[in-house]
Amino acid sequence: MTETTKIALNPNYKRIATEEAFAPQAVLDMYRKLYESHTLGDPGFDSLWGFYSTSKAARPSFIREKLADLDALRIADMDAAGIDHQIIALTSPGVQVFERDIAVSLARESNDVLADAVKRHPTRFTGLCAIAPQAPELAAQELERCLKLDMRGIIIHSHTFGEYLSDQKFWAIFEAAEALQLPIYLHPNTPPKNMIGPFVEAGLDGAIFGFGVETGLHLLRIITAGVFDRFPRLTMIVGHMGEALPYWMYRLDYMHEAGVRAARYECMKPLKKKVSDYLRENVYITNSGVAWEPAVKFAQQVLGVDRVMYAMDYPYQYTPREVLDMDAMDMSLEHKREFYQGVAEKVFKLR
Amino acid sequence: MTETTKIALNPNYKRIATEEAFAPQAVLDMYRKLYESHTLGDPGFDSLWGFYSTSKAARPSFIREKLADLDALRIADMDAAGIDHQIIALTSPGVQVFERDIAVSLARESNDVLADAVKRHPTRFTGLCAIAPQAPELAAQELERCLKLDMRGIIIHSHTFGEYLSDQKFWAIFEAAEALQLPIYLHPNTPPKNMIGPFVEAGLDGAIFGFGVETGLHLLRIITAGVFDRFPRLTMIVGHMGEALPYWMYRLDYMHEAGVRAARYECMKPLKKKVSDYLRENVYITNSGVAWEPAVKFAQQVLGVDRVMYAMDYPYQYTPREVLDMDAMDMSLEHKREFYQGVAEKVFKLR
Repeated sequence: MTETTKIALNPNYKRIATEEAFAPQAVLDMYRKLYESHTLGDPGFDSLWGFYSTSKAARPSFIREKLADLDALRIADMDAAGIDHQIIALTSPGVQVFERDIAVSLARESNDVLADAVKRHPTRFTGLCAIAPQAPELAAQELERCLKLDMRGIIIHSHTFGEYLSDQKFWAIFEAAEALQLPIYLHPNTPPKNMIGPFVEAGLDGAIFGFGVETGLHLLRIITAGVFDRFPRLTMIVGHMGEALPYWMYRLDYMHEAGVRAARYECMKPLKKKVSDYLRENVYITNSGVAWEPAVKFAQQVLGVDRVMYAMDYPYQYTPREVLDMDAMDMSLEHKREFYQGVAEKVFKLR
Repeated sequence: MTETTKIALNPNYKRIATEEAFAPQAVLDMYRKLYESHTLGDPGFDSLWGFYSTSKAARPSFIREKLADLDALRIADMDAAGIDHQIIALTSPGVQVFERDIAVSLARESNDVLADAVKRHPTRFTGLCAIAPQAPELAAQELERCLKLDMRGIIIHSHTFGEYLSDQKFWAIFEAAEALQLPIYLHPNTPPKNMIGPFVEAGLDGAIFGFGVETGLHLLRIITAGVFDRFPRLTMIVGHMGEALPYWMYRLDYMHEAGVRAARYECMKPLKKKVSDYLRENVYITNSGVAWEPAVKFAQQVLGVDRVMYAMDYPYQYTPREVLDMDAMDMSLEHKREFYQGVAEKVFKLR
């Protein structure tokens, strides 16, 4: 994963990477302690951070080192990979595995660490605000504080102790996000314990598959619960090519309509629009983890060029030369500029 | 769902629908009894057949009636929708929710019912053989019998009591399927009880999302367990645009390689090829439930035109006019003929 040859910046657009991770060393230490304590009862967390916090293999060692850095190491990696700017957020599962009061204070501390780094490197970094969904009524307060720290969005790592934001107890978060015009990046977590069984027994609970399923399910729950009818100006972002929901759009629309018409589920009410309308109008996606022209172009085709952003997923998927593949996509310069720069500037108000 | 205007057959190709369902009335009655007995302990089955076997809404009533028919009703619907030929299989979850001995005999009876219908309507129907994965050592016997009944493949409805075909206890099925050159259609079931929690509480356990996730996960488990290294001439088919795995290919390859290299999971061993190679070389997909040009063309692009087949998913998704949308795709006649006819003729040996 080391690379000595630098990739030149592209003269035609800034390369803005929009789903890049960090973690203060204190948080990494707490993940390790939590794993070693065996008290959480979350097989997904044990699988993820049992591996990343203890393994001596090259990949987890590299990731631990790079997650904790917000200065020279990170900027050198960005330079080597031709990345102009990172949108940075606390790594998964954020503070969402800790007891409520700890989670609230840890989110604050983590936001301060990130905001300080952004102040040191304002041309290279933009920060997203971590919150504790465990305390939805405190979200507005921390979001207002983060706005003053010049943060440009919110990071939430899918479920919190097996609960989803589709539950109305969390909707104060949406209310605050909409009012403050802060987009919510819904980032993967491992599936919760009442879902992870057949994934984890086959080693498929993490980024290879479980992450995407869990997060796609979460966004679909948010849509079908009517969140965007209640908060029509709310904006969300999902990575990994939209966690496959763009590919499923036709079936989602057909089966949602059929299920509602047949009144199959008490919990599934009519929506104002089709499921795919919310995906096109309230959601942006990034190609984190998927440096693959066919998928990028498919998503642009079905969602719109103004809905798809570049992301590297640093340091988890640090492939320095991937931007050369993305630069070489058979795509107009105008659309490539939107992909790398234009959409991100709009969503995160970078200008 | 009634349609009086017939769609003309297309003079340029046969329209062969490759994932079409039936169920003898006796099986439908057993599903209803099983649901009402509350003895299975499978929330997915209760959700699916609790709805389809008892609801008086238009959709489930239509589906019950049409599932049980293998004569005039079905052929009239095919004629109305411009379908030349159906590849027919026992509906989900097949016999996979019954006790072993019952399952074995019910599969035989069901296969006899289907084989008789194919004899009555040989130009309109082709049958797939149902088996009981509960008795893998008996699979070869029933498959040989089905071959004599002129069946052209095997239907398996994902998990069986929460177990997956990636478990070597089931590999006698793969051995027989490979030896007899019968492709296995891996059709959806609802997720098992140790996975379905966050799906079913939001009404997303069925065809809208849970089906696809469960079946995509199952195929991925089969691939990563090394089944296609052990049985390289084995062929599988998955519906619903490949249950999203084609869209995930880049990430599957990247993360499988990374996980194996870091030795993250004891159960995840190196494979002879990339995950995507097996998808391209051992797997065919159908567009059941997804009459949507962008997804069809994406799959053709990344898997190959010789890997993607048409399916209607009758009677669950009987939209008579959908073939007109598919006929109108911006696609060469040669590729459209492959999609509707050529690939299916090869896979099911229809000539």
